[in-house]
Amino acid sequence: MKDAVDHLTEALEAAYLEHAEGPDGAHDVHHARRVWTNARRIAEEEGTGDLRIIAAAAYLHDLVNLRKDAPDRHRASAQSGAKASRVLAELGFSEEEIEGARHAIRSHSYSAGIPPETPEARIVQDADRLESLGALGLARAFHVGGVLGRGLLDGEDPFARRRPLDEVAYSLDHFQSKLLKLPEKFQTASGRRMALERAQVLQDFLQTLRTELMVE
Amino acid sequence: MKDAVDHLTEALEAAYLEHAEGPDGAHDVHHARRVWTNARRIAEEEGTGDLRIIAAAAYLHDLVNLRKDAPDRHRASAQSGAKASRVLAELGFSEEEIEGARHAIRSHSYSAGIPPETPEARIVQDADRLESLGALGLARAFHVGGVLGRGLLDGEDPFARRRPLDEVAYSLDHFQSKLLKLPEKFQTASGRRMALERAQVLQDFLQTLRTELMVE
Repeated sequence: MKDAVDHLTEALEAAYLEHAEGPDGAHDVHHARRVWTNARRIAEEEGTGDLRIIAAAAYLHDLVNLRKDAPDRHRASAQSGAKASRVLAELGFSEEEIEGARHAIRSHSYSAGIPPETPEARIVQDADRLESLGALGLARAFHVGGVLGRGLLDGEDPFARRRPLDEVAYSLDHFQSKLLKLPEKFQTASGRRMALERAQVLQDFLQTLRTELMVE
Repeated sequence: MKDAVDHLTEALEAAYLEHAEGPDGAHDVHHARRVWTNARRIAEEEGTGDLRIIAAAAYLHDLVNLRKDAPDRHRASAQSGAKASRVLAELGFSEEEIEGARHAIRSHSYSAGIPPETPEARIVQDADRLESLGALGLARAFHVGGVLGRGLLDGEDPFARRRPLDEVAYSLDHFQSKLLKLPEKFQTASGRRMALERAQVLQDFLQTLRTELMVE
């Protein structure tokens, strides 16, 4: 038997598929589903957050997706929030729910710089950031580096022992400059626990790579 | 105290740096050094192979490097072999040594389709193929996929349970279609043992990714 949440997520998924702009290999309906699944898990562990608002924000947070190097990338989450508001109104969400979802969508991204101020926004931001860590985050980091024409690693000094980090030049630098610092920025205790598990996947990878590269 | 092999590898490294065409993030002097280090380890464990020939082939095997999607990519190893012959003659290698190194260089690559027929050629091929596995192979697979404009993975069916593998479409497919099959193609027992260890790194990664993607 499908419950009310199942019907809701079906409608949100259909809305995402109809209205999403610029999905790519890392931002597609499967990403939206996983963000919802992890957001729901965090909400249940934390015992907080409105599941209708969380589902709406999780499914529609990347409705407008722009490339990492697009000049107006920092406006993608605001554009997604505005577009999601219209979609949610059509789906019969209340004014208050729409405002809650819109805030969570606008504050989910790194580049917009809007702090999450509600339980729903904190939970969706955590669920989305989990995807930058772990095996998936690892694959995405090197894939995106290749797409953007960055180098894989600095052969002379792969782990930046004797130079400043430069993630624009080397994909591998992205691990130290950004990915491994993510867990401390998580907003909920449950999200942070999941983030630390996934950061360990990255740490193990770096340790193995260090051995293979015969560094130090 | 430097021994004769140290002096030789210094000269070969200088020759690589002077003559290499088209080095990239995965094919540079550090790659050449690691191939030499692992080739020497394999030769010592196997108790076979002429170290002068192995060092020459290991350092100069990518003297001419072409992109994975270049139409004449399958000729890069023959071009490297011809160029290495001239370089080695200048360095005072004998005719017989040059012929041995040239064969090892010509037969090292997948795409040329020339079987390695000497201990030196088998050892250098194994040492070079190790770099396609492990943490480094993982990073390279996703980096190269991004450079070549491939997708990261198939969101509908990431592990190709219900479709044929398609490594031109998805970087992740490359693991099943090629990387995990590499160890059985290794030429020496020591090389194969090292390859199996590095293939396990890939298997562990895939298992973690499967959990994160919530597949099955």
